Amino acid sequence: MTQPALHNAHLPTLFLSSDDIAAVVTARGLGAVIAGVATCIEQDFVRWEDFDKSPRLANHSKQGVIELMPVSDDTTYSVKYVNGHPKNFMTGLPTVMAFGCLARVDTGAPTLVSELTLTTAIRTAATSALVAKHVARPDSTTMAIIGNGAQSEFQCLGFAHMLGIHMFRLFDVDATASHKLARHLANAGLLATICDSAAQACESADIVTTVTADKTNALIITPGMLAAGTHLNAVGGDCPGKTEIHPQVLASGPVFVEFEPQTRVEGDIQMLDPDFAVTELWRVFKGEATGRTHPAQITVFDSVGFALEDFSAMRYMGQAAHDLGLGQALALIPALADPKNLFALLEQPHQRRGPSLVALDTFKMGSSALHMPVPVPVPSTSPTTQGRS
Amino acid sequence: MTQPALHNAHLPTLFLSSDDIAAVVTARGLGAVIAGVATCIEQDFVRWEDFDKSPRLANHSKQGVIELMPVSDDTTYSVKYVNGHPKNFMTGLPTVMAFGCLARVDTGAPTLVSELTLTTAIRTAATSALVAKHVARPDSTTMAIIGNGAQSEFQCLGFAHMLGIHMFRLFDVDATASHKLARHLANAGLLATICDSAAQACESADIVTTVTADKTNALIITPGMLAAGTHLNAVGGDCPGKTEIHPQVLASGPVFVEFEPQTRVEGDIQMLDPDFAVTELWRVFKGEATGRTHPAQITVFDSVGFALEDFSAMRYMGQAAHDLGLGQALALIPALADPKNLFALLEQPHQRRGPSLVALDTFKMGSSALHMPVPVPVPSTSPTTQGRS
Repeated sequence: MTQPALHNAHLPTLFLSSDDIAAVVTARGLGAVIAGVATCIEQDFVRWEDFDKSPRLANHSKQGVIELMPVSDDTTYSVKYVNGHPKNFMTGLPTVMAFGCLARVDTGAPTLVSELTLTTAIRTAATSALVAKHVARPDSTTMAIIGNGAQSEFQCLGFAHMLGIHMFRLFDVDATASHKLARHLANAGLLATICDSAAQACESADIVTTVTADKTNALIITPGMLAAGTHLNAVGGDCPGKTEIHPQVLASGPVFVEFEPQTRVEGDIQMLDPDFAVTELWRVFKGEATGRTHPAQITVFDSVGFALEDFSAMRYMGQAAHDLGLGQALALIPALADPKNLFALLEQPHQRRGPSLVALDTFKMGSSALHMPVPVPVPSTSPTTQGRS
Repeated sequence: MTQPALHNAHLPTLFLSSDDIAAVVTARGLGAVIAGVATCIEQDFVRWEDFDKSPRLANHSKQGVIELMPVSDDTTYSVKYVNGHPKNFMTGLPTVMAFGCLARVDTGAPTLVSELTLTTAIRTAATSALVAKHVARPDSTTMAIIGNGAQSEFQCLGFAHMLGIHMFRLFDVDATASHKLARHLANAGLLATICDSAAQACESADIVTTVTADKTNALIITPGMLAAGTHLNAVGGDCPGKTEIHPQVLASGPVFVEFEPQTRVEGDIQMLDPDFAVTELWRVFKGEATGRTHPAQITVFDSVGFALEDFSAMRYMGQAAHDLGLGQALALIPALADPKNLFALLEQPHQRRGPSLVALDTFKMGSSALHMPVPVPVPSTSPTTQGRS
């Protein structure tokens, strides 16, 4: 168990700002980044039993919610801080803001601190498109998208890149948001039709995505709106008291979820009986459970967002930043000449004081310093390993 | 609800490195900083009912533990990431490394990201000395300190500054650690005696502090070692399977705890019956419960470390950094011209790319931007307020 050599008074923690994440997207293209994150998510979900999982820890307030989303395997620990404040747009702030870290399980040292505001939108879209690849009709060409806010472009471009969806039917109670989305889709060479209602948007859609922000029990999708064979990608219902889908719609087809104990509390299925049958995604990805069984079936992904998706997205972004030479080292954890002598940090702080961020090459930090697990791309039934070299 | 004006492409998040915290200590003195943090802790503990509290969320591994410690009131959310890896010293790493953030409850925006490795040692010492001020004999002059590692100087200097303790009796299985502590205490004008055993260290001590690191059920303090009237400050037993005190010693006097549901699982009292009576500190600080009732009593503080202490320490350090002009603004959360248009961040990233840390005055960031609660220094029985201006 060797540690990276220390070149100054701090351990090497890689910091990625939202500009760094934007630079990754510029270099590779948004569709390719979403698909790359989706590959990491699938690789990690098939190793489901390797992870120490818990529902996220939420602090609710009148205005919104702040959540912590930790997960770990034998090698790497990951946690995301994320809020959800539906009224934030009124004061010019994003509804969802996030950041997080990766850390080494063997020492507890944080190796990566990253913005996750952009990354959350990317990984949410990646998960949605990945699920649809497994359970939507393969001949799908058209997607309705209801809720045209901050996440909508990511959803549409993810589905365009990963499933070849090229026609989008848009609805939002805020027409300005729909026009913004339509403009971005047109720039990407995709067809966008702005509709007058959610029901109109669903007409002739193979896939229906709901991604609204209100913290209410809304009924965005009601019985009769979905044609036979539709895949419903229900993203916006993701905390207690925040739902989008009529219970009868949920009950009309198989419902797929990320992590059942969390989705029972946060997902649209919070409205259903606790023993309503659901299927966890990892079983589908691993081939242990069936996705769609016939073309006329309605399938539902009750998305809430699970910590493992952030784990996967951070390891993708950490590797991409390494490959592209992005990011800086953040002076977060002091390096000690004698680890039992923390007090020494206080003895001559004037002489020790250095910059809080330094260029990466100061640390010769490579992706191996991130201590990310080497993913196993093929489904495996081998038991969790306890050892570590 | 006005937001700070945005001067570049990110929200203002103050970053404090361990060098910044060391600079706060240099400017004010360690004793004064510990006492200042203790004042903040006492102010916040007397508002106990105002806080949304939960035991920390721990991911245990063979090598140690990684924990998240969130807490919030109506105004401010706080979370700490902290590890505990007893064998880290073997590879030159600190046993405990930590960082955390403060955020606004009304918007979810993080306002402060700080190192908490140094700060954790400071707030742990502050809590210990604060408790001893309330329950140790007022004529105490001598403290035994068993475990002379990274936290020991902070404990000793806190007790010296806040209680006037000036004689210290040191023991550690690693004699090098004791010599390091003795040297630091001598430099601070304090008397230090290195002892050959824990039992010898306890002789003639008014206060006994245990702060060992091993993740085992150890018996550092056994029946007969403590004289009548001793206050036992038991710091090192702080997670399941990690204890220091013989159950009979715990049962020999009143036991004070931070947050009972957490201490039942993590503290030395994990070895006792679940209905063994304990007293939460806030009741003592608020005058609702008695501390010591007679000079010959043995009193016990079963310290594990509670999230509210980090909340208090971060608001002290945020204010101190503001007063002293320390810290930098970290590019953690993107600022959006249109909060529903996150995608715009990806449109011209080359032109938007800026530094990840900038001088604070770019943001005109003041302590008000930290959105910290104005503490109520006097005990109060008023109900939690729900509103906010």
